[in-house]
Amino acid sequence: MTTFVLDGKLAADTFAVATLGLCDLRLMNDRRWPWLILVPQRPDKVELHDLTPLDQTMLTFEMGIAAQALKAVTGCEKINIAALGNIVRQLHVHIIARNTGDAGWPGPVWGYGTAEPYQPEDARKLALAISNAL
Amino acid sequence: MTTFVLDGKLAADTFAVATLGLCDLRLMNDRRWPWLILVPQRPDKVELHDLTPLDQTMLTFEMGIAAQALKAVTGCEKINIAALGNIVRQLHVHIIARNTGDAGWPGPVWGYGTAEPYQPEDARKLALAISNAL
Repeated sequence: MTTFVLDGKLAADTFAVATLGLCDLRLMNDRRWPWLILVPQRPDKVELHDLTPLDQTMLTFEMGIAAQALKAVTGCEKINIAALGNIVRQLHVHIIARNTGDAGWPGPVWGYGTAEPYQPEDARKLALAISNAL
Repeated sequence: MTTFVLDGKLAADTFAVATLGLCDLRLMNDRRWPWLILVPQRPDKVELHDLTPLDQTMLTFEMGIAAQALKAVTGCEKINIAALGNIVRQLHVHIIARNTGDAGWPGPVWGYGTAEPYQPEDARKLALAISNAL
């Protein structure tokens, strides 16, 4: 059995928020949008449908609680959820808080401009608020 | 109880593929990428987590079979799945077949260039192939 190791680019671009039943929940280090990443702790999975049916159901549940926590903490207008993986192949799900007039609105966030890192204290506070809202 | 009516923009931009247990499965009229849309037949839902837990599980299952059918028919390298809704608020899920070097690769498809409509016969053939692969 292969051990799960978080992809190096995901690790470098995110902060830890919480460890859920299936997923590692992370905060993207880009203050333009409150942006969570769920990474199922299953090695060698690339597509959502590669997960077992039970893991797919777990992921759906964890996407729901993460999205609701993000919405509660940010008061955002719309949640964007996506599993793309064109660049990082390790299976991961984006959950992003969007608002009219934010960077790139109403287009997608991926590939838009350049990431603006948080002040470490701001990232820590947001990660804690989201963790508390789960 | 409100009756479900497909959003006008989604109706105008897509072809019917199949009616599943929860969702209307549609083909986006843009031949740059084989691109399916799943629309849960539930009125007034905006976010995935607005669905009941049972409907969320049904949607997860239907996303899986639609993605596997799309992959089987197209032989694509990667599936992109997303629920955005920044423009069309009626809850819908994109399932897109992606390949290295396709239009906009490795960026997202939304907002990239201009849709290139199918010849009607080509859309009909692709929709039928996907329906048969479900």
